[in-house]
Amino acid sequence: MNQAFTLIEPGPVVLVTTHDGGKDNIMTISWTMVMDFKPVFAITTGAWNHSFAALRKHRECVIAIPTVDLLDQVVGIGTCSGADTDKFSRFGLTPVPAMQVRPPLIKECVANIECQVIDIIERHDIVVLEGVAAYLDTDRKEQRRLHAVGDGTFIVDGRRLDRRKMMATKLPAGV
Amino acid sequence: MNQAFTLIEPGPVVLVTTHDGGKDNIMTISWTMVMDFKPVFAITTGAWNHSFAALRKHRECVIAIPTVDLLDQVVGIGTCSGADTDKFSRFGLTPVPAMQVRPPLIKECVANIECQVIDIIERHDIVVLEGVAAYLDTDRKEQRRLHAVGDGTFIVDGRRLDRRKMMATKLPAGV
Repeated sequence: MNQAFTLIEPGPVVLVTTHDGGKDNIMTISWTMVMDFKPVFAITTGAWNHSFAALRKHRECVIAIPTVDLLDQVVGIGTCSGADTDKFSRFGLTPVPAMQVRPPLIKECVANIECQVIDIIERHDIVVLEGVAAYLDTDRKEQRRLHAVGDGTFIVDGRRLDRRKMMATKLPAGV
Repeated sequence: MNQAFTLIEPGPVVLVTTHDGGKDNIMTISWTMVMDFKPVFAITTGAWNHSFAALRKHRECVIAIPTVDLLDQVVGIGTCSGADTDKFSRFGLTPVPAMQVRPPLIKECVANIECQVIDIIERHDIVVLEGVAAYLDTDRKEQRRLHAVGDGTFIVDGRRLDRRKMMATKLPAGV
């Protein structure tokens, strides 16, 4: 869990699953933020969002991180509503029971983080989440995440540069 | 200004300049979040941070977006403190007067956004910013941004995929 923030910090587009008491839903967002070297994250959306009601009421979700091969599902999920669509079925994604929360993991995603809502900042619709369990599929061949530019284009992860040595004094133990 | 959020949304590492009444300072952060299809952003840091005091007191900053050729400056800025270092001088960066705020733009960066603090959420140290002016250097040859993983490694922007048509219904006009 002390490495879970490294899944969110580079700013990938994420899928967020919720459960509204009756059924599962998924939304696509890239309005996310790491909040310390801890598994604490902020996300924001608005009242227009069907998932947001479930998140407010049931106070848990799963952040699932898709890779580039899932781009069309990511965009499709972001452009229809759970109000009238079963998104798992429509986009061929597989819900997998989580350990500590009711919303499901997404099997096809490279990483999943089970989260509980620890605060909602009403005046900005910011939801503060604490990760309680995290999964990373290191065997998955495609690992490259997507970054939404916000104008309908997406940037794919390129190469990775290592500055661990330069940053050694700044990094918490175990990261 | 209605495209400024597209500079932040893909999750690049950013430099934030502040002015404490006496001198300019710079910090490196990747704890940032877009908050709507508007030039409104959240950033978070902590009381340990020298820039944070200036941000709280003077309520303005510039978000400057570096590219991959500036990686060592980005890491260097993130691993020393403005309390005892003139970071512009030490890292060879050029402050350029902003139009509407006192903290300077950074000439070497590909984009700069002048921001005013519109709210501070004390219990989470979240600073909510509104962009008031934005600059993008489209002539600059190196355009690739960096994404901090949080473990001392950085992912460089790879190729860009276009899903504008699929997302047309979702995007605000002018983006």
